Amino acid sequence: MRDVAIIGVGMIPFGRRDEDTLLDMLAYASLKALDDAGLGDKSVDCVYVANMGAGILQHQTSVASALVDRLSLIPAAADAVENGPASGASAIKNGLLAVASGYYDTALVAGGEKMREVVGWKATDFVATMTHPEAEYPYGITLPGMAGMFTRLYMEKYGVTREQLLAIAIKNQKMGALNPYAHVEMVITKEGIYDSPDAVVNNPVAADPLHLYDMCPVSDGAAAVVLCPLELAKKIAPKSPVLIAGFGQATDTHTLQERDDPTDLKAVTLASQQAFEMAKLKPKDIDVAELHDAFTILEIAESEHAGFFKKGEGGKAAEKGETSIGGKLPINLSGGLKARGHPVGATGVAQIVDIVFQLRHELDKKRQAKNAKNGFTINFGGFGNNIVAFVLRRVE
Amino acid sequence: MRDVAIIGVGMIPFGRRDEDTLLDMLAYASLKALDDAGLGDKSVDCVYVANMGAGILQHQTSVASALVDRLSLIPAAADAVENGPASGASAIKNGLLAVASGYYDTALVAGGEKMREVVGWKATDFVATMTHPEAEYPYGITLPGMAGMFTRLYMEKYGVTREQLLAIAIKNQKMGALNPYAHVEMVITKEGIYDSPDAVVNNPVAADPLHLYDMCPVSDGAAAVVLCPLELAKKIAPKSPVLIAGFGQATDTHTLQERDDPTDLKAVTLASQQAFEMAKLKPKDIDVAELHDAFTILEIAESEHAGFFKKGEGGKAAEKGETSIGGKLPINLSGGLKARGHPVGATGVAQIVDIVFQLRHELDKKRQAKNAKNGFTINFGGFGNNIVAFVLRRVE
Repeated sequence: MRDVAIIGVGMIPFGRRDEDTLLDMLAYASLKALDDAGLGDKSVDCVYVANMGAGILQHQTSVASALVDRLSLIPAAADAVENGPASGASAIKNGLLAVASGYYDTALVAGGEKMREVVGWKATDFVATMTHPEAEYPYGITLPGMAGMFTRLYMEKYGVTREQLLAIAIKNQKMGALNPYAHVEMVITKEGIYDSPDAVVNNPVAADPLHLYDMCPVSDGAAAVVLCPLELAKKIAPKSPVLIAGFGQATDTHTLQERDDPTDLKAVTLASQQAFEMAKLKPKDIDVAELHDAFTILEIAESEHAGFFKKGEGGKAAEKGETSIGGKLPINLSGGLKARGHPVGATGVAQIVDIVFQLRHELDKKRQAKNAKNGFTINFGGFGNNIVAFVLRRVE
Repeated sequence: MRDVAIIGVGMIPFGRRDEDTLLDMLAYASLKALDDAGLGDKSVDCVYVANMGAGILQHQTSVASALVDRLSLIPAAADAVENGPASGASAIKNGLLAVASGYYDTALVAGGEKMREVVGWKATDFVATMTHPEAEYPYGITLPGMAGMFTRLYMEKYGVTREQLLAIAIKNQKMGALNPYAHVEMVITKEGIYDSPDAVVNNPVAADPLHLYDMCPVSDGAAAVVLCPLELAKKIAPKSPVLIAGFGQATDTHTLQERDDPTDLKAVTLASQQAFEMAKLKPKDIDVAELHDAFTILEIAESEHAGFFKKGEGGKAAEKGETSIGGKLPINLSGGLKARGHPVGATGVAQIVDIVFQLRHELDKKRQAKNAKNGFTINFGGFGNNIVAFVLRRVE
């Protein structure tokens, strides 16, 4: 297969975007990515749209066809790709394979979700549509509920503490406050949240042992990337191209309850191994990572399952600052899902956009991982039942 | 890119399947395809699910993850692909490119839709979610309404007659009655429908000038195919492999009203040309075709835009029997969408399954196109805004 590079990226500020339709958001992010790629009025050969919920949330289908029309990219081929909250990475995978195959030369991949139209239990219910339709959903399980149970087991087995979880929240909200695209801009502190006499009010239990600040927000947002063969990228890319050096995707049992050890995220391990193998790299070679911290525990668990830390060491590493900027392996310098927000269809694309920013060395020094050459992402579908991992590499 | 072949196909009877969930139907069709491919207990590398409406109709997402779990295909990579009523062909395209790229060796593509849970205006409304979310849907346009207007223009410009439309309905329902997988099993005649004094009752106007028997039914159903590289297929396929010789996909304006000439289905022409070019074949080389006759007019219009007949000649050819079994180019020997049914996510996969049956020469003589070597399909997204075409070839 041909080497494929990212030559353009675009993102719009995540948050509450009542004024925009889903199509508006996808179009804005796409236009930024096309412009960043220097394509100007040129078209692309194919378009992939990552979206999980337009049918449920907007009563809308055929979003990919609507987007190519909106962007005047006709007659480009266009499809939508859905893999729950990992839809973004799955869409990039399909763009990657389409270009790698040699059939198409240029691909636009745009991910977007407009979730703030429903709030409270309706937002939780929407997210729960990704659970098993017979064995989970009818019994009222929610994703926060699953995450709470997973956290309790992980704490018991590996000694993860509430302080470690809080360290993730504090780190990611601090970085989010520096990111112009982030939904959550509020810096939190241990004193203000955990040690405060008002903690029960400020940070109430959401799904025991997880509290409010262990959860990502419900966000609107969109992000986009433009792909082409590496050889073409070297000729036309106005900025440093970023190679998609490795890719992996693996599934696990759809329900959490069927896994022999529910703390073992086998699909994270396998997808990461596949990505590292393709890239001919090891976890120690990675300079910066975006992990899927929809819940604080997931950043810890993924950092261990992807091979960056031994089991039980991820939380300690975060607490010691090893995953903060300037640390051994900075994780979620964007603020992660926790602070950038989690418009489900957009997230996997946004993670790639943020790693491209890092590998192009274009962020200010408060957010830039120094001399970053290799980046890594995990996009987490379902409760770990469909994982997509990428290794990206700066092309000098 | 590597040559890719179809080594297994499966389909379940379309119709009203109240007893089955969407996942049941996808699983049944997939198991038949895996069995047909001789894979037995072996897994596949990746899975694509074609589905348009699970979010709206079943309040369900992440269907692809649920299917790999149900089929014990874990840890195979799995995504869902949506392109309105062309979701099936789009999913096959992505399976094709995934295998063609060299990253994956085996792919299962399953398309399914459970539409009979909603009937009457709710079914029409569901289908209308594929129209433009701002310029069409809010004004109450429906797909039958668009087809009615398109038919009137086509009649005026090219002299298509009601008798020609009826010839399509009669031909396809006759073939459907012979197809064990077809939803509609009723043979209709000109005398019973068009010339009958009861015509107004038996075949009322649905969207002038289209009548009830110009429309496909609302169906439940699923179909699946297994893909692998041609070289591997020659070693492992228990039946004649079928090569995906050509593929094309093109988009057009999302709304019908924006097209300079609404009777000109540019995306059908372009997608067909791409498919023929890749296959190094011409329309005259095709022995059997499955076209997307959601409305009778579409079979005529597609047969012309794909290059099989000159504009204005497709209806006459159908009336003369040239597109019937034994004719110059048999079209929709399966009964087409008109009689096999149109569970939207399943249709594009079912068309490929039916062409594979033809190219493997395994149908009884009432349905088998004689010595069929090359087959062709059109899967029609939106009202012609996203078209996918395939050329398939029997491998001797």
